[in-house]
Amino acid sequence: MILTVTLNPALDITYVVDSVTPGSTHRVSEVAERAGGKGVNVASVLHQLGAPVLATGLLGGTTGERVGALLGGLPAGFMRIEGETRRTIVATDGQDATGFWEPGPVITAAEWDGFRRHFDLLCSHASVVVCSGSLPPGVPVDAYAQLITVARGLGVRTVLDTSGAALPAGLAAEPDLIKPNESELAALTEPIPTRTTVAASRGPDGLTIRGPAGSWRGRVPQRLDGNPTGAGDACVAALAAGLAGYTPWPELVRDAVALSAAAVVAPVAGQVDLATYQRLIPLITIEELS
Amino acid sequence: MILTVTLNPALDITYVVDSVTPGSTHRVSEVAERAGGKGVNVASVLHQLGAPVLATGLLGGTTGERVGALLGGLPAGFMRIEGETRRTIVATDGQDATGFWEPGPVITAAEWDGFRRHFDLLCSHASVVVCSGSLPPGVPVDAYAQLITVARGLGVRTVLDTSGAALPAGLAAEPDLIKPNESELAALTEPIPTRTTVAASRGPDGLTIRGPAGSWRGRVPQRLDGNPTGAGDACVAALAAGLAGYTPWPELVRDAVALSAAAVVAPVAGQVDLATYQRLIPLITIEELS
Repeated sequence: MILTVTLNPALDITYVVDSVTPGSTHRVSEVAERAGGKGVNVASVLHQLGAPVLATGLLGGTTGERVGALLGGLPAGFMRIEGETRRTIVATDGQDATGFWEPGPVITAAEWDGFRRHFDLLCSHASVVVCSGSLPPGVPVDAYAQLITVARGLGVRTVLDTSGAALPAGLAAEPDLIKPNESELAALTEPIPTRTTVAASRGPDGLTIRGPAGSWRGRVPQRLDGNPTGAGDACVAALAAGLAGYTPWPELVRDAVALSAAAVVAPVAGQVDLATYQRLIPLITIEELS
Repeated sequence: MILTVTLNPALDITYVVDSVTPGSTHRVSEVAERAGGKGVNVASVLHQLGAPVLATGLLGGTTGERVGALLGGLPAGFMRIEGETRRTIVATDGQDATGFWEPGPVITAAEWDGFRRHFDLLCSHASVVVCSGSLPPGVPVDAYAQLITVARGLGVRTVLDTSGAALPAGLAAEPDLIKPNESELAALTEPIPTRTTVAASRGPDGLTIRGPAGSWRGRVPQRLDGNPTGAGDACVAALAAGLAGYTPWPELVRDAVALSAAAVVAPVAGQVDLATYQRLIPLITIEELS
């Protein structure tokens, strides 16, 4: 099974409004809620593909309960914490999206110790571990390195998709794969471990993979309109599934590019359009890089 | 006991942000939550004054649970509904406040019938009923008229503080007192029943009361800086307490003006600064109107 870790999940709330005017009050005409967080999106895509998956992480308070309920049929084993899980609010007028990101609950040292034990148990049943998204306040900056070290000790392959200080700190544990975007890759001053494969998403310019096994670039032949939120998480889902199945890299790049594009076409993050995915697979161009 | 009715309560969420820019994403530095809704504010002020009070209304979902928890020590008997209680979001940069108001859950006909039975029971123990705020979707527009009719049948005095179509519809049941602001009063085309006293708040220009017992105006002698949100609810709290105690009108006007001003000085809606209240009472000017 693929284990996804979401330490700072969210209740994603979308408001439909006429337009956003600072300093005024807006009547919301429609409210939509979903379980959010990059690792939850990765797990949802894998579940939609029929891959065995388990979503774990930290949830707390009434917002955490709501997120748990919204996971629906997704197999999940989150650990309860004292603090309130964060919300993200996006107000959209059909054109622009105005977002408000809560910081997330402060995790105590005891809670982090508890999660490490919880993770040890789940990890022993996993073939791949995916660590996604930001770290909540209170969790050590090397939190992902700690989890990756445990996973590697158990022979479990590891994917890291985070940003800021958590990325170089996690990279020190030498995950099998990281998936930075261009700006995250540019900001990375630390050397990338030789055993780590780098999957760099370049938006409409496709996906580049560079690692010990070789280098490839995959591209969609046509421009797809839609919602790019969640395309990166779908890409990570494909990469994790490929690692789990020991898929050869060129084929894995093809899958990842097609699944990212299928996420752009789907209306919300954490979903992919399976017909688009199947239709695009033979159309993806794969190029071996020197 | 004074019974306050809040059919569309809210989880009031305040975000501290640097500034609000449409189309961009904002990191929230501080999150504050409180139980909101005009009737909840009225009940909170009465509870702070030591008056016997019970807050009722409709609460549902995990947001409703959170509101219930945030009521703290306030005596409350809300009825559970299927839908999710609404949230209000206010993003403040210290200068401007940008608000997003969710519409509230849709109340079923069976739930409204259930609430009417619930209200009958509570109302029989009340001396005054206060109906405050907007109606949630699904509740009949004459919902307040229905409750006021029940209360009047039991000899319970009634206060109505609402706006839009709910105000004239509720007014048809001839409540003892309504508290419109100037624009609500101007929009009212229906005649006001002769038995109904009108308390019209004019912000810094004070409060005018006109009814079968006479007409008075009360004013604060000095301008007070602070947060005017909740001043109207504090005014209603004073009016309800006065009706419960058969306080003579000029004295009641004095109380209402002083308590409104004491709410402006308090940092959040539903609270009053008791020292300011006591200090202002002898300073309020009361004028009998012809």
